[in-house]
Amino acid sequence: MDFVSELKSKSKFIEEKIKRYMPKEEGYQKTVFEAMNYSLDAGGKRLRPILIMEAYKICGGKDDMYIPFSAAIEMIHTYSLIHDDLPALDNDDLRRGKATNHKVFGEAMAILAGDALLSHAFETILGESVKSIYPERGLKASYEISKAAGIYGMIAGQVVDVESEGMKIDKDKLDFIHKNKTAAMIVACMRVGAILANASEEKLQAMTVYGQKIGLAFQIVDDILDIVGDEATLGKNVGSDIENEKSTYPSIFGIEKSWEMAQELVEDAKMQIKDFDESNEFLLNLSEYIVRRKY
Amino acid sequence: MDFVSELKSKSKFIEEKIKRYMPKEEGYQKTVFEAMNYSLDAGGKRLRPILIMEAYKICGGKDDMYIPFSAAIEMIHTYSLIHDDLPALDNDDLRRGKATNHKVFGEAMAILAGDALLSHAFETILGESVKSIYPERGLKASYEISKAAGIYGMIAGQVVDVESEGMKIDKDKLDFIHKNKTAAMIVACMRVGAILANASEEKLQAMTVYGQKIGLAFQIVDDILDIVGDEATLGKNVGSDIENEKSTYPSIFGIEKSWEMAQELVEDAKMQIKDFDESNEFLLNLSEYIVRRKY
Repeated sequence: MDFVSELKSKSKFIEEKIKRYMPKEEGYQKTVFEAMNYSLDAGGKRLRPILIMEAYKICGGKDDMYIPFSAAIEMIHTYSLIHDDLPALDNDDLRRGKATNHKVFGEAMAILAGDALLSHAFETILGESVKSIYPERGLKASYEISKAAGIYGMIAGQVVDVESEGMKIDKDKLDFIHKNKTAAMIVACMRVGAILANASEEKLQAMTVYGQKIGLAFQIVDDILDIVGDEATLGKNVGSDIENEKSTYPSIFGIEKSWEMAQELVEDAKMQIKDFDESNEFLLNLSEYIVRRKY
Repeated sequence: MDFVSELKSKSKFIEEKIKRYMPKEEGYQKTVFEAMNYSLDAGGKRLRPILIMEAYKICGGKDDMYIPFSAAIEMIHTYSLIHDDLPALDNDDLRRGKATNHKVFGEAMAILAGDALLSHAFETILGESVKSIYPERGLKASYEISKAAGIYGMIAGQVVDVESEGMKIDKDKLDFIHKNKTAAMIVACMRVGAILANASEEKLQAMTVYGQKIGLAFQIVDDILDIVGDEATLGKNVGSDIENEKSTYPSIFGIEKSWEMAQELVEDAKMQIKDFDESNEFLLNLSEYIVRRKY
């Protein structure tokens, strides 16, 4: 199986697993369940839940205790997109080729659906951890997710990104945004997988660095695709960064240099995982794929 | 000391404790820290954090392991108010006598400040639980909070409340709203205190029922005060329920009958705590106070 087919098959596998943790669309509050499921079902690569699964496996994890965490990370990612798309923030009408949440359910419900996904992520992993035979691993992994999603993680990046719109910013600030807005959650995926598998401190460290490198590479490529990408393939409008006068890697360093930087980061990432006992071709190929992807 | 002075003194005590868990207003993302602190510092009775403290004490808890949970519950309560006040939801300009969050920081930052408070609540309790000598109690208490704040708790009530605006609703639906929007978090406070104190199943059950009774009484009185209360004392506009054609206990049962129902609930609540080994005058008086309060 080639890598893209393998990625698709893993996406499909993890989607099925995640669905079990989503609410049935019944009860007085069913509109919010519909809104949550609408955005969660909107597709995407499911990169984050897959990363948790692969990190768990490469660290020697054997069963499926990672699955609620994979579900939670995708819920948190989805909540961040719903709120990001709101009129008061990016005011986007289109996401993954579908109307954005507030376009379908209205602003009030989109705000509540985001809140609901964030809360339900924690309810899912804490509930599973309480029942788990390893509650302390579940607790530690949940803490990792809360940090990455929080005010010194994803939200920090989001805040500075919003405040920097239409302004020239320097590389320090841009790195702060990338590190927090995108990389923090990707690093958390790697760490959660490692923690659930009870990995050694050394392996946890390797997973952390792998996540940092591919997280930054992923964001640089995202910014490049916003300039050179194809709207139909990406399923979203391109050129929005230039339109919003956002500072990005390509706007500071140019496209060629940005590609080179992304490629270097990916080589560094691959170094981190080559000495693990469990081989993981998928994680090696995934890092390559990040700089070769078209969407 | 009379009860109101005692309540004020406890509010002040808990406010000081909570502050330690709030972010310092520095760093690239400091605007969101300012927005979080602005609403958290806006006062209020601090009823929920006090309930955790008192439930912890009446169940025999001796140290201060409840404090991060008290902080978290107030953060979650505050996030719910910030999002509730947004133009797309209740569109309120005034809260506790101060301009609402989005009036001061703008809509984008108010949405992010709410997200930030919710995330930071979990980061706070999970971080403390990881370090705790009783991590499993911390985990269980965190799970209680996630359930109460979530899609079968506070958010459920909020969703149905928003969707019911301007509509006549029956008592079933109204009870669903009250039970979830207000009582769920109050019940969680009582349960969190009990769980942290490692209470027996029987005591946990008594705390749960106490919370259900005072939670519903609190909401009924809130609705009555929206009709008969004084704007200056309440620190918010009155008459908004009638203006928004909201169904409430007084609109369904009349003011007199609603008072009676609230008083009965309070008597039931008091029954729950009279046989505890630790006496707790404060919890007895608090339930009385709920039906006597003016704000």
